[in-house]
Amino acid sequence: MNNSHQPEVKPYLITKTLVPENQESPIHFLHGDIASGKLFYRRNHFSYPNFASSFYFLPIEGLVPTPKTFSLQEIYSLPSKTIKVVLECSGDKRKLFKPKVYGEQWGKGAISQGIWKGVSLRTLLQYTGLIETAKEIVFEGYDYGKRPDSDQLFNFSRSLSIEKALDPDTMIAYEYNNHPIPFKHGFPLRLIVPSWYAMASVKWIKKMTVIDHAFKGPYQAVDYVYYPNKENDNGKFPVTTINVNSTIQYPLNMQLLHTGIYEINGISWTGKGSITKVEISLDGGHTWDTCQLTSTIEKYAWTPWKYKWEALKKGEYIITSKATDSEGNVQPLEPLWNRKGYGYNAFDNIKVKVE
Amino acid sequence: MNNSHQPEVKPYLITKTLVPENQESPIHFLHGDIASGKLFYRRNHFSYPNFASSFYFLPIEGLVPTPKTFSLQEIYSLPSKTIKVVLECSGDKRKLFKPKVYGEQWGKGAISQGIWKGVSLRTLLQYTGLIETAKEIVFEGYDYGKRPDSDQLFNFSRSLSIEKALDPDTMIAYEYNNHPIPFKHGFPLRLIVPSWYAMASVKWIKKMTVIDHAFKGPYQAVDYVYYPNKENDNGKFPVTTINVNSTIQYPLNMQLLHTGIYEINGISWTGKGSITKVEISLDGGHTWDTCQLTSTIEKYAWTPWKYKWEALKKGEYIITSKATDSEGNVQPLEPLWNRKGYGYNAFDNIKVKVE
Repeated sequence: MNNSHQPEVKPYLITKTLVPENQESPIHFLHGDIASGKLFYRRNHFSYPNFASSFYFLPIEGLVPTPKTFSLQEIYSLPSKTIKVVLECSGDKRKLFKPKVYGEQWGKGAISQGIWKGVSLRTLLQYTGLIETAKEIVFEGYDYGKRPDSDQLFNFSRSLSIEKALDPDTMIAYEYNNHPIPFKHGFPLRLIVPSWYAMASVKWIKKMTVIDHAFKGPYQAVDYVYYPNKENDNGKFPVTTINVNSTIQYPLNMQLLHTGIYEINGISWTGKGSITKVEISLDGGHTWDTCQLTSTIEKYAWTPWKYKWEALKKGEYIITSKATDSEGNVQPLEPLWNRKGYGYNAFDNIKVKVE
Repeated sequence: MNNSHQPEVKPYLITKTLVPENQESPIHFLHGDIASGKLFYRRNHFSYPNFASSFYFLPIEGLVPTPKTFSLQEIYSLPSKTIKVVLECSGDKRKLFKPKVYGEQWGKGAISQGIWKGVSLRTLLQYTGLIETAKEIVFEGYDYGKRPDSDQLFNFSRSLSIEKALDPDTMIAYEYNNHPIPFKHGFPLRLIVPSWYAMASVKWIKKMTVIDHAFKGPYQAVDYVYYPNKENDNGKFPVTTINVNSTIQYPLNMQLLHTGIYEINGISWTGKGSITKVEISLDGGHTWDTCQLTSTIEKYAWTPWKYKWEALKKGEYIITSKATDSEGNVQPLEPLWNRKGYGYNAFDNIKVKVE
């Protein structure tokens, strides 16, 4: 064996739990724009579902004048759209909350992005129509199991308002990065709700049901709700739109560096609107400078950024990033603490030492 | 596609840095006794070395009456020994130090164990002999590069005292788990120094040189030294024997559990001597109970342990493990803080909530 080449060195998913499978993306080592299916974070509530996708049909039921069941071939034949979308688990960065909160201790990698192709949900709804009293659409996934708080079996189900369901970018996707969606990410059909945290993007859709009231399933009304108080439910409100946020990818936290010139870089993203500015501080937030945004803005994609740092003076540095979006939202110094640990979006901080 | 089986779900290495490659084992998800080569933690100072292993020979030089260069075939033909050995990076658990220290932020997985087969170093030294003034043997690896503190190139080199080199269990290994050692773990030959932190177990051995003085290479005299003071080098001493230690593998930190009966389990290990006791506390260290050691004691292997926990009362619990070895060493409440972050071995703590 002549080792004339370096052996392959690559990052992997970071395991949080195996049953069900919850693994985060190695976000600090993903400098490409698009996560491969392999490095896309995996977030499950249950074991993987078991269904015959060769006999797969998608029904739209409930308060519709013309209920209809679509075959995959019908869906593939309808006008399609293709969008680059960030999906972020609402528990992303949960382990950073202080006081700590229970649940999967996601670091900074419960986020990935890629290119989804599918059909607008509104296109499908044109076939069924909507009865006037229709208020929400419930999306039921094939995945099911027990919750920690009950002995009952639940499918993973979530609803959208009719208004959000009719957003032309809310889609029933069947391809990811030009291939069928990987099974672990929702094959054959996944709801994609751009700009919302990813609990809304139901995988393995089993059926859609139009209802005239507010859906109260446990993944709508118990989980994925911000509870700002530790001891009671006062002030609760649902998790929906992604908060403005940023992550420093390089350097790494607690890294030792020579004096020299470095490119600090990372990503920034938001739900509503688009990123307009990323600022960086090298002195723990006393002074700020503006970063360069390094790609054209795409509505639902993250925006990479970089900053040239002349690290000529030895010492310890706290590096902080802060993103601002077109709606005027700015990452806060402190996150909104909430009992279940959703939506963390405080300034991103790392510490390095220049020797 | 009929998904009548669950798709494969497996843990992966956890990336700390890619250049050089440093990845830790998913220790909480390794309930087997032996790490496969794939899930063995990877710790490198440099890029992987580039040498022609088909022309590989191992010289013993320096203060020996009869210098000799061994071929691999000669080494394979000598009497062998096979030992199950824990290898632990001395930076294991570094991220737990408070105040935090710089360097790779290893969690609890810079440790793996498996079965090494090779020839005792003392067998090889019988061919060369030792000149009376011989004091240490320097082991040079093929891997080399620049250090953060210098522009010079260094090979990774470490020394052992003659006494430690002649320990019958100090060996030149050529197999791991009944296969040739994986290249990333030192193929074709790796020094294995059982009971010492793994910086001593030099990979890709290039040559061995007997010297009459204390070796002062930077991986001996600068790194892998405990510096108990932040600002000066007072009180420094070398990193050698593995400290008594334990890790809770199940449950996971910040896990939510139903009321019920659980098996808390984990591993314990030490350098000198063997594990005699693992205690567990469910109340933050106020009261302790004894765990069951679940395998026969093997001198250089870790000792798995378990504890039956009747978690019938709802609430938050701090679970703590504390190991004791046959030399009377006990894990301390607080680690010995040191500037480079070696040898962390305080009580292992996690927090869970029973609902």
